[in-house]
Amino acid sequence: MTERFDVIIVGGGVIGSSIAFQLSKRNYKVLIVEKDKLAGRASSAAAGMLGAQSELENNSPLFEVARQSRAMFPALADELKELTGIDIELMQNGILKVAMTNEECTHIKSISAFQQAVGEKAEWLSSEQVKEKEPSISDSVLGGMFMPNDGQVSAPKLSIAFAQAATVLGAQIFEYTEVCNFLIEKGHVIGVETVNGKLYADETIVAGGAWSTQIMKHTGMKLDVYPVKGECFSVRFKGRLLKSSIFSSMGYIVPKAGGRLIIGATQKPYTFDEAVHLGSVSHLVNNAKKIISSLKDAEWDKVWAGIRPQTEDGMPYLDKHPHVNGLSIATGHYRNGILLSAYTGLHMADLLEGKEVNTNFCLDRKTIKGVHA
Amino acid sequence: MTERFDVIIVGGGVIGSSIAFQLSKRNYKVLIVEKDKLAGRASSAAAGMLGAQSELENNSPLFEVARQSRAMFPALADELKELTGIDIELMQNGILKVAMTNEECTHIKSISAFQQAVGEKAEWLSSEQVKEKEPSISDSVLGGMFMPNDGQVSAPKLSIAFAQAATVLGAQIFEYTEVCNFLIEKGHVIGVETVNGKLYADETIVAGGAWSTQIMKHTGMKLDVYPVKGECFSVRFKGRLLKSSIFSSMGYIVPKAGGRLIIGATQKPYTFDEAVHLGSVSHLVNNAKKIISSLKDAEWDKVWAGIRPQTEDGMPYLDKHPHVNGLSIATGHYRNGILLSAYTGLHMADLLEGKEVNTNFCLDRKTIKGVHA
Amino acid sequence: MTERFDVIIVGGGVIGSSIAFQLSKRNYKVLIVEKDKLAGRASSAAAGMLGAQSELENNSPLFEVARQSRAMFPALADELKELTGIDIELMQNGILKVAMTNEECTHIKSISAFQQAVGEKAEWLSSEQVKEKEPSISDSVLGGMFMPNDGQVSAPKLSIAFAQAATVLGAQIFEYTEVCNFLIEKGHVIGVETVNGKLYADETIVAGGAWSTQIMKHTGMKLDVYPVKGECFSVRFKGRLLKSSIFSSMGYIVPKAGGRLIIGATQKPYTFDEAVHLGSVSHLVNNAKKIISSLKDAEWDKVWAGIRPQTEDGMPYLDKHPHVNGLSIATGHYRNGILLSAYTGLHMADLLEGKEVNTNFCLDRKTIKGVHA
Amino acid sequence: MTERFDVIIVGGGVIGSSIAFQLSKRNYKVLIVEKDKLAGRASSAAAGMLGAQSELENNSPLFEVARQSRAMFPALADELKELTGIDIELMQNGILKVAMTNEECTHIKSISAFQQAVGEKAEWLSSEQVKEKEPSISDSVLGGMFMPNDGQVSAPKLSIAFAQAATVLGAQIFEYTEVCNFLIEKGHVIGVETVNGKLYADETIVAGGAWSTQIMKHTGMKLDVYPVKGECFSVRFKGRLLKSSIFSSMGYIVPKAGGRLIIGATQKPYTFDEAVHLGSVSHLVNNAKKIISSLKDAEWDKVWAGIRPQTEDGMPYLDKHPHVNGLSIATGHYRNGILLSAYTGLHMADLLEGKEVNTNFCLDRKTIKGVHA
Repeated sequence: MTERFDVIIVGGGVIGSSIAFQLSKRNYKVLIVEKDKLAGRASSAAAGMLGAQSELENNSPLFEVARQSRAMFPALADELKELTGIDIELMQNGILKVAMTNEECTHIKSISAFQQAVGEKAEWLSSEQVKEKEPSISDSVLGGMFMPNDGQVSAPKLSIAFAQAATVLGAQIFEYTEVCNFLIEKGHVIGVETVNGKLYADETIVAGGAWSTQIMKHTGMKLDVYPVKGECFSVRFKGRLLKSSIFSSMGYIVPKAGGRLIIGATQKPYTFDEAVHLGSVSHLVNNAKKIISSLKDAEWDKVWAGIRPQTEDGMPYLDKHPHVNGLSIATGHYRNGILLSAYTGLHMADLLEGKEVNTNFCLDRKTIKGVHA
Repeated sequence: MTERFDVIIVGGGVIGSSIAFQLSKRNYKVLIVEKDKLAGRASSAAAGMLGAQSELENNSPLFEVARQSRAMFPALADELKELTGIDIELMQNGILKVAMTNEECTHIKSISAFQQAVGEKAEWLSSEQVKEKEPSISDSVLGGMFMPNDGQVSAPKLSIAFAQAATVLGAQIFEYTEVCNFLIEKGHVIGVETVNGKLYADETIVAGGAWSTQIMKHTGMKLDVYPVKGECFSVRFKGRLLKSSIFSSMGYIVPKAGGRLIIGATQKPYTFDEAVHLGSVSHLVNNAKKIISSLKDAEWDKVWAGIRPQTEDGMPYLDKHPHVNGLSIATGHYRNGILLSAYTGLHMADLLEGKEVNTNFCLDRKTIKGVHA
Repeated sequence: MTERFDVIIVGGGVIGSSIAFQLSKRNYKVLIVEKDKLAGRASSAAAGMLGAQSELENNSPLFEVARQSRAMFPALADELKELTGIDIELMQNGILKVAMTNEECTHIKSISAFQQAVGEKAEWLSSEQVKEKEPSISDSVLGGMFMPNDGQVSAPKLSIAFAQAATVLGAQIFEYTEVCNFLIEKGHVIGVETVNGKLYADETIVAGGAWSTQIMKHTGMKLDVYPVKGECFSVRFKGRLLKSSIFSSMGYIVPKAGGRLIIGATQKPYTFDEAVHLGSVSHLVNNAKKIISSLKDAEWDKVWAGIRPQTEDGMPYLDKHPHVNGLSIATGHYRNGILLSAYTGLHMADLLEGKEVNTNFCLDRKTIKGVHA
Repeated sequence: MTERFDVIIVGGGVIGSSIAFQLSKRNYKVLIVEKDKLAGRASSAAAGMLGAQSELENNSPLFEVARQSRAMFPALADELKELTGIDIELMQNGILKVAMTNEECTHIKSISAFQQAVGEKAEWLSSEQVKEKEPSISDSVLGGMFMPNDGQVSAPKLSIAFAQAATVLGAQIFEYTEVCNFLIEKGHVIGVETVNGKLYADETIVAGGAWSTQIMKHTGMKLDVYPVKGECFSVRFKGRLLKSSIFSSMGYIVPKAGGRLIIGATQKPYTFDEAVHLGSVSHLVNNAKKIISSLKDAEWDKVWAGIRPQTEDGMPYLDKHPHVNGLSIATGHYRNGILLSAYTGLHMADLLEGKEVNTNFCLDRKTIKGVHA
């Protein structure tokens, strides 16, 4: 282990793997160190929506890069397929944000107006138009905004494809290698100390999701990133129950490849406990049946949970450490880690190369209220 | 495969395996032929209640043998442990049959009176006494009958232990060996034709659960046994949520070893489809929460389904074939296969040896209305 | 279940599902009846090689349709992706047939010559050229024939995609629905009797793999199809160990998406037992290490087995029943079910529509020695 | 989380859970904090041998407590069964240590003499006697020492039973709760800081297996405990292949309940990586077949790995922290964690209560060469 790397990336989730992929493409000698298995936590738990418009409703710096990141996926899907054989199951099938109350109608119509004003497709559909588009939807849906450019991928496949593509381009991956501390010499991080020994690199990037906060404490930094548990379940349906993903205040229903549907998600802050509770299953099932009653005939598949990294203002941190050289951070993507992974890989690679990057995600920004997804 | 057996048992579930065990103890050369994996269907799906009193409420031939079978389990548990190392997780922790309405109170009290009259313990408990016994039970429970002698085992472990004990005593087991037909010579069954070839024995016993009806058609018999699907789920709880099993008109909750609880079960007749539907999960979850609201904090474990063999009068068939020699049948145990397995093994072994057996389970009995569990 | 279908297909494996897909495209009302789960047996067990040249070496009717079927996959992959979202993981990465002895060199060179003569790419590579192409290959490999047009798909995904595509086009699927007999009226099959009841259709096609023989017995036919068990295992490798699939007399190694490699397969005739034995694992592992010694550093994934349907002359049966109307059969694809599935769907759809089809796969053909793969 | 505990135990493996059980019996308010799932690592990976004589051959302090711990299991099995319903599958079926070479014969005979001298049963058996006792053993075994008082339990069940028993007695368990640091006030540990917040207790015990070294670094201690990976696999056999466990220089074969056999184990120091490599499977399989050739007919079950905590002198550390109050440690049990868990629970409970304990496992002992198992 006296091998020296250009960049060590701490965290083998979708963010760390995307960065590893971009850096490997630029011929850096990259190592991912992951404390457990690759893509074992939030990255595999996500429903995989590319909800640039459905998740980030308002004008904000995040809305901009979300659309930018969404636009990268078609080329990315081809590139990852070519390198790894893995299809990330990109579907550009739109997301339909439905209103269940009059208040929601009003609110969603205003978002629709805003998004159209900035040039996005975001048509308001009446109750009848919704039923025409998605006949399985319940009569209690009063209308909805259809965003044809939002889509989805398979979250586990995207994460694994990024990592595997990086290795095909020369990167290495050490699983089961928890980082215990940074190796710091004259104010410069020169590597990491892990349970399996010391590892050296010119640059270190922490992409540890909600776990990043603990890692960064070793530098004295109090990172404003906290965990939010999300519980989900999935069912299987023969034939095609939905064409697009459905997004509502009561949760989402995402039709995946082969007739599987993912239904989520609860939001339980301040816990890393991945247990799925019976009360949550009950809540999710009852809500989903209100939106599509014929779901009751679907076949039960499974339940799971993921721990998302949230920040106070709802925007990720993509920046260099303020006072330790050779150390950067990329986390806080909350429910948008899959969507923003494409952008984040580029942003971090540019940052390391000293190129100019979007400064909205720096660590010392003023917190912007209202972006919270 | 020119080896000749004393007895071939068609079906490697709990009934076939119990018969194999008893016959092996009596030194017969036994072969179990199972079309898939041992204990792969209903036998592993059962909650494992030994509900002699809770399931068979009224005076009937079945009530008698149910109690007789229940009494065999303590010795059986020791015997199977000794031979196989498998603990069948016998718990003699009682079953509490709760009333949710006034009508149910009246009904259950009358059962309690009857069962006490025939010498069983079946005490009526007031709402307060129920809460004292099981503090987690909901206030909407109006009272209940406690049957301390009812208990439970692990259904999968019992089934596998019977089969493994039989092999330790010399029996053979062929898995993935579907029976296609009987080999009949001069009106006598001399073996079976399977997908893997012909197998010969002096006696053949069909113990194929709900699948027995199809097998028996080859002899021209129209067996009155039909499938009833039961869907279940389980959760995990740290500590002890319940001391006894809870039985109600809305389903049952059975506390298993290590804090696991099994909650069941739906009853969907005339299907072999083992898919678990979302509507069933929703139904079971909502009912269970009405009985014990703190279940909402339990950790989700899994769902499954089993196909139980039901008969018109609710009693099993344990008899020789009426006009083909060398062929017997043991099926139709519906929700009581685990409970009745102990008795059934003895009954069938005695039947084959020409001993006198209880004639209530013969094939040509008059159907007795009202036994239906 | 009084609904009437145009075509009932008995068997939900890759062959039945491909036929269902083609018939659904031609607007027939199709029903698949499957005794267990879709694609639950051999179809999911296959390594997925499209080995038109590697498996079918010699000039034979099968070699012709194998190449024809292989050529259909690129368009099929697009079509299935569009309808179902499922990527069948088609890789046109070639198969390298390696020689471990001088005898094998001679033999493979002669095949190479023959295949080139009929217009296929099948270049002989020296030991050095093999190492250059696939650096991980062992020095004990003496040379090999590279067939760039052979490729592979994911067998489970292809099977499920066919079935799901059929349902999107209107087909129905009944799982856990074992067929017990045919419904025959005046010498014409009008449907099937299943464990879940009777089902009616104008035409019935048996596509039950190795299980077809038993089903056909109900018509008095002695179908010459027998089971051959194949045991496999898989490993995971970070990065790309192989570019192409390796085929040898000692087994094959197939690189799948994401760094997984499938290694197979044993050949054990006359059994439906899907158990994988320790001796087989040992045999497969030791052989694989002889071909690629660095496999020892790969991560263990899992083992499984599949039951392939073999015929006396090694060619499938794709034909109408000789003396019962309304009944056809499509089975006997042995190790080439995935490869031939594309062709078989078309063949059977044409056969039902009364179009002219290749007669080499008829039931009353003279057995051709030497085609046996 | 402002609740205050008497004792916090860091680590929910077999050691931490045994301590929690003993302390709960003594009415302390106990909390287990576990970074992942209970018994998720080495504790569930162990084969479960109670090899007091087979593992600890020579006279040493560990040999003494190993025998003491072994003697505790019968009563413990009953106690855990009563509290939790879990059977720990205690089998007192002996361990047979076999010799494959003349050197091993000489060596094992000398151990046999020593063990008999100190009053243990440890009979030397000739090759013929070995075959008589275990007919399946290969002819290449030259003899062996039979230790009838060594036995085994199910490692995962023991671990879960300890934890569940503790909760029944009032203990709490927080899973997914990684400890980041200790809370220290005036040189006294008053609790732990975890990813889910701060937790307070009068006493803290670290029982984190191989992970303990990292945790203890927060107190400035350089704990001499390092990881040793062990890879295993298991098979299933119908009937009884072995009566006793077989132990050899080439690995062990342990017959578990229901015909399962565990075969292990590799020893790879200095890694936490739980991947099982193909080369290890190959090695284990080939060795096992040399000892029992009929294993080749057993059905493959699965593979796994565990990370054992080893120390320089091969003995565990069971002691208070030398200069921080309120903090103790219990780790370093290497391959004997299951066997020593019973003793360790008592030792640590006594230590916390200020009772006199065996001082051989203190932190500042002189390293004793030669105990290394």
